[in-house]
Amino acid sequence: MTDIEIGRGKRARRAYGLDDIAIIPNRRTRDPEGVSINWQIDAYQFETPVIAAPMDSVMSPATAIALGHLGGLGVLDLEGLWTRHEDPEAVLAEISELGSTVDSPQTTARLQELYQAPIQAELITARLAEIRAAGVTVAGALTPQRTQEFYKTVLAAGVDIFVIRGTTVSAEHVSKNQEPLNLKQFIYELDVPVIVGGAAGYTPALHLMRTGAAGVLVGFGGGASSTTRRALGIHSPMASAISDVAAARRDYMDESGGRYVHVIADGGMGTSGDIVKAIAMGADAVMLGAALARANEAPGRGWHWGAEAHHPELPRGDRVRLDSVGPLSEVLFGPAHHTNGTSNLMGALRRSMATTGYSDLKEFQRVEVVISPR
Amino acid sequence: MTDIEIGRGKRARRAYGLDDIAIIPNRRTRDPEGVSINWQIDAYQFETPVIAAPMDSVMSPATAIALGHLGGLGVLDLEGLWTRHEDPEAVLAEISELGSTVDSPQTTARLQELYQAPIQAELITARLAEIRAAGVTVAGALTPQRTQEFYKTVLAAGVDIFVIRGTTVSAEHVSKNQEPLNLKQFIYELDVPVIVGGAAGYTPALHLMRTGAAGVLVGFGGGASSTTRRALGIHSPMASAISDVAAARRDYMDESGGRYVHVIADGGMGTSGDIVKAIAMGADAVMLGAALARANEAPGRGWHWGAEAHHPELPRGDRVRLDSVGPLSEVLFGPAHHTNGTSNLMGALRRSMATTGYSDLKEFQRVEVVISPR
Amino acid sequence: MTDIEIGRGKRARRAYGLDDIAIIPNRRTRDPEGVSINWQIDAYQFETPVIAAPMDSVMSPATAIALGHLGGLGVLDLEGLWTRHEDPEAVLAEISELGSTVDSPQTTARLQELYQAPIQAELITARLAEIRAAGVTVAGALTPQRTQEFYKTVLAAGVDIFVIRGTTVSAEHVSKNQEPLNLKQFIYELDVPVIVGGAAGYTPALHLMRTGAAGVLVGFGGGASSTTRRALGIHSPMASAISDVAAARRDYMDESGGRYVHVIADGGMGTSGDIVKAIAMGADAVMLGAALARANEAPGRGWHWGAEAHHPELPRGDRVRLDSVGPLSEVLFGPAHHTNGTSNLMGALRRSMATTGYSDLKEFQRVEVVISPR
Amino acid sequence: MTDIEIGRGKRARRAYGLDDIAIIPNRRTRDPEGVSINWQIDAYQFETPVIAAPMDSVMSPATAIALGHLGGLGVLDLEGLWTRHEDPEAVLAEISELGSTVDSPQTTARLQELYQAPIQAELITARLAEIRAAGVTVAGALTPQRTQEFYKTVLAAGVDIFVIRGTTVSAEHVSKNQEPLNLKQFIYELDVPVIVGGAAGYTPALHLMRTGAAGVLVGFGGGASSTTRRALGIHSPMASAISDVAAARRDYMDESGGRYVHVIADGGMGTSGDIVKAIAMGADAVMLGAALARANEAPGRGWHWGAEAHHPELPRGDRVRLDSVGPLSEVLFGPAHHTNGTSNLMGALRRSMATTGYSDLKEFQRVEVVISPR
Repeated sequence: MTDIEIGRGKRARRAYGLDDIAIIPNRRTRDPEGVSINWQIDAYQFETPVIAAPMDSVMSPATAIALGHLGGLGVLDLEGLWTRHEDPEAVLAEISELGSTVDSPQTTARLQELYQAPIQAELITARLAEIRAAGVTVAGALTPQRTQEFYKTVLAAGVDIFVIRGTTVSAEHVSKNQEPLNLKQFIYELDVPVIVGGAAGYTPALHLMRTGAAGVLVGFGGGASSTTRRALGIHSPMASAISDVAAARRDYMDESGGRYVHVIADGGMGTSGDIVKAIAMGADAVMLGAALARANEAPGRGWHWGAEAHHPELPRGDRVRLDSVGPLSEVLFGPAHHTNGTSNLMGALRRSMATTGYSDLKEFQRVEVVISPR
Repeated sequence: MTDIEIGRGKRARRAYGLDDIAIIPNRRTRDPEGVSINWQIDAYQFETPVIAAPMDSVMSPATAIALGHLGGLGVLDLEGLWTRHEDPEAVLAEISELGSTVDSPQTTARLQELYQAPIQAELITARLAEIRAAGVTVAGALTPQRTQEFYKTVLAAGVDIFVIRGTTVSAEHVSKNQEPLNLKQFIYELDVPVIVGGAAGYTPALHLMRTGAAGVLVGFGGGASSTTRRALGIHSPMASAISDVAAARRDYMDESGGRYVHVIADGGMGTSGDIVKAIAMGADAVMLGAALARANEAPGRGWHWGAEAHHPELPRGDRVRLDSVGPLSEVLFGPAHHTNGTSNLMGALRRSMATTGYSDLKEFQRVEVVISPR
Repeated sequence: MTDIEIGRGKRARRAYGLDDIAIIPNRRTRDPEGVSINWQIDAYQFETPVIAAPMDSVMSPATAIALGHLGGLGVLDLEGLWTRHEDPEAVLAEISELGSTVDSPQTTARLQELYQAPIQAELITARLAEIRAAGVTVAGALTPQRTQEFYKTVLAAGVDIFVIRGTTVSAEHVSKNQEPLNLKQFIYELDVPVIVGGAAGYTPALHLMRTGAAGVLVGFGGGASSTTRRALGIHSPMASAISDVAAARRDYMDESGGRYVHVIADGGMGTSGDIVKAIAMGADAVMLGAALARANEAPGRGWHWGAEAHHPELPRGDRVRLDSVGPLSEVLFGPAHHTNGTSNLMGALRRSMATTGYSDLKEFQRVEVVISPR
Repeated sequence: MTDIEIGRGKRARRAYGLDDIAIIPNRRTRDPEGVSINWQIDAYQFETPVIAAPMDSVMSPATAIALGHLGGLGVLDLEGLWTRHEDPEAVLAEISELGSTVDSPQTTARLQELYQAPIQAELITARLAEIRAAGVTVAGALTPQRTQEFYKTVLAAGVDIFVIRGTTVSAEHVSKNQEPLNLKQFIYELDVPVIVGGAAGYTPALHLMRTGAAGVLVGFGGGASSTTRRALGIHSPMASAISDVAAARRDYMDESGGRYVHVIADGGMGTSGDIVKAIAMGADAVMLGAALARANEAPGRGWHWGAEAHHPELPRGDRVRLDSVGPLSEVLFGPAHHTNGTSNLMGALRRSMATTGYSDLKEFQRVEVVISPR
């Protein structure tokens, strides 16, 4: 590890974001048609390595179904509007009329109110049932704080994949107020595969892997990274974070005698180039927020926000305007009619793999990269 | 020390600012409620590690009292408007109508005039008495140049903590005009703890520690750093500076047989993230200017300036507009209704400590950081 | 090679673009008149090391002739408008009325249509014949995908230099759909010298050199690099790329017992300073797009685009507005009436060589450079 | 020397500009009044280390006299308007009505015309006589190309210091057209001290020192550096350049048995902070252009340009608008009424030296610096 002295009392490593790197071709090229972007976790197979972030601007039951039919995995936020309100479409319609949180503290205040409505267990059941009825893989997300309270409801409703997602999730949470979730025991007793995170470093990811998780989310998710840095001073540049967690995957596979834990990059991948680079760093799949919120069908209706935007005391993510760029199918598979890397995400991934000569995602994790900040 | 060749005749180290770094979580997390941000210097205990900068836009007797009641320490500038004018509120009201110094040389000229009024010893006495009467810890600041002239007045008025603060303060000042202040003897003879600075390096800070100071201010204060760099070529990036002085604290503790001198980051911390990072670099507490000038009650009334802005021959700091963001209590403890890191400063600090698994400020100085310029 | 750890699972080198470097004078200076910028490839001699990129905004038969008369080499795109349309001037006139692709997806859609017209072999013959009739060196370009289909037509029409150019061309292309072009055999059997690329690294370039090519194009061409990075994550900073390929040239010369393969920098050289730096990095000649599209005579009529702008499913280059700066002769030889490095490109090259004391292009490849990002 | 691989075929060092560095205080401070900024070259003593650049926007006979009376050295451009026109004030008045060269090629064309007027030997004599009559040190500048033709006129007119200044001046110029100036012989035979440059590296500066020059100009002067980089690819960051030449001064002093050649930073110092840093890098004095063109009396009347702006074939410097900031005396000695580092240049220099504890310029060359790009 390159260790740099900041001052006489502190050393640190240089960490790199996805913008700091680029992939480069080598001696072989390939036709894009000869490339596979299939991905499998546990018993579930997907035609694309795309997981939708459990955010109300990105996923509703309807869009989770649509994404499932297109070969990806939609994850519903089980602590969002769909489980707090009988008629979330009306709430989403109201929200679509609000301004940006950057310009208007009232927007933040209204969001805070709308997310104060209590979570209703029967709505969890109903929403998941709707997805299940469509025949796609069913996934829902809770935060670690709410997992104890609602996981039985979630399991009873029949999820295929259980996601425990928070800004930062550790295998060892200390709390005076309540008995913290014992992740290891919880996952051990559960019947379905669990994806857990965010984590952003070798050690915390390795500890999460040891809990028995099927996948680890890398990053702090939700497009809120820049305000998290400003508000909390916390920032974990994604290229370095993914690469660290990929190394933990390798070491854990050795120590566990062969268990392969999937590394899922979560957050900050706004363009197809970012997705390409996340996989080049070692990710097995990507969890997308803003990139999917740009689909015409997205419930955010041209806006995007995460749970950080409505924290009751310390909001540290914004609700921001995004341009819709076309139907979800075009976002994923094109054809594109512009060049900004927000359409035909999977076509771009295929082409990058082909241009650098790789034929599947696992191989592509070995592609050569350069450091070249822009 | 990383030593880089600039040219064949000069070597230098790379120094880092707070914007160049970020903190990162590790294997453990914690509830924000389980975190202590208490701070103590000498016999004085505080519920927050926040000291208000002795600047007329930040501190008046009334705001020093308010901050004291909220758990921080207000320091009054004893060479500012409050000791030069009988009715400083009228002067502050006039100033609030002036434009920015950036656009208007007349503003600079008027500030220069208003700060030419002589300092009146009896006003020093009166202002400090007002603070003392409120039952909070009393602190006032003089520059090294004025300390000899006024310190007896200050002591007689009854300060608890004496602050000697200048752009750069050294333990060894050379002057032909007057006998310079012998800091070591002065502090030795004084009955109250002294905080002294700015200093921004291992050696100058170590020398200040040897004078017997209870605390050392790190940095050049007053939000004027960018114009100081342009005008004087002087700049000491804060992350490296704090880390260097923290190393001096450790070495001085060894050489002195256990005296712990507090390291107080002073200047350039405009957001809660900056405060977090200053402590991560080794600061025991932070002296805030602009961050507190954003409170509704701040005497600057939406403007902020330091002593550099009215220097008679070489002004090198500006009077700048700040948006007021809420009452002082919200600035410190929230709730926040926006995401720019200027409200709920202490809530953000707690959350950062919790997210990285630390339970008190001293431990938090060991948090892992990365270099990641933005 | 400087090898940097991005994270525990990935290492990379730092790569540099032309903007990151600058050349510096040394102990000797020279008159610009005493400098030669002649260039020769195979039997063909040129008074300038300038090759025009095969792009419809840059080269038509008429401008290829004009450039030839001015001492450079024009390359016609044999898959562009001139071989798809009987009356390309009418098509170019229509295109000149379209907006930028950045603002208008309709422009992209119309370009996609206009480039769907089939390539007509007889038009290839006619366009090349027109150039040949003017007595200048004749060069045309095909992509690797089309080379098998049309190369006999091209040879029969009588090119002097054959260019095989794609975004990324490797010596080893893998395809399931069709037998890929066997470059080595193809070039071996051909009677004319072949220039092939883009390549951007030591190994891929060395493999291309081993096919028998007379020249290798370095880079991804076409001014599309920034959108390629955003869309595909691929980026190969030019200074490092040229330097790597120049090293491959040296090593291949050794392994082949003396064959000198020309290194031609292709893309991203918008100013005379960029041309200077490309040669300083080891290029023998430069292939220019935007720099020549700024000539009054350029067929793009103040606009510039490459094949990436009309890709049917994944456009990843834009059609952008350029200011015309004068006749082609002024672009190359001045006099200039402005200072932005877009006129008198060859005068600037001569002056740089003179200021640093070099008298021919091959020597100038040894000029000292510094790293100094701007 | 830190040697970095750009690619396999090229290595380079990282070079630093003045913006990349800053000076930092140390253990001692001092009163500004206790600081000397005197400078002496050969027999000529100056109260400030300020030399005005021989540029028509900066120096006229009147301003050279004014600067001399204020303790600096004015150098008249003997190939500028004052020696080409009988009534240069009328020409300057006309020029003051022209627009910027950036917006208007006509401005460049008109400048090219006005500077085509032939140089008149009798005007050289008259202008220098005017300066001499005022009793200040007399200095005039020629380019190496014109030195042979006019130096006798210059000497006969009675200069005290002879300046040979060009964009890049080497001790070994190669020319086919004319016998180049043999600097060593020329300087040996001359009776007055010669300052020669620009040079920007250890080796070229060492060679210039060996010609017997009293001073060497470091840099490419004239505020044209950014367009020179764009047009020619040439750039020599000033911090590294000055430091290199300062090392050549030391080594030459050793090899010559004690001859001290003055290092004069020339160009790119727009603020007092830049002047401070140039001396910190090892400069003995600074040659200022834009910084003095901001004086009310400056002949450029709020505009600034150098010889690069009117080159007949390859202009590569612009005529740019500058805000006038006050009389020359205020520019040099204050008082300042703003904070942008353009007034009270010498007051700022004194204060920097005082803050870092140094008492004369030679000592101040040893001040500690940090690398901290902004």
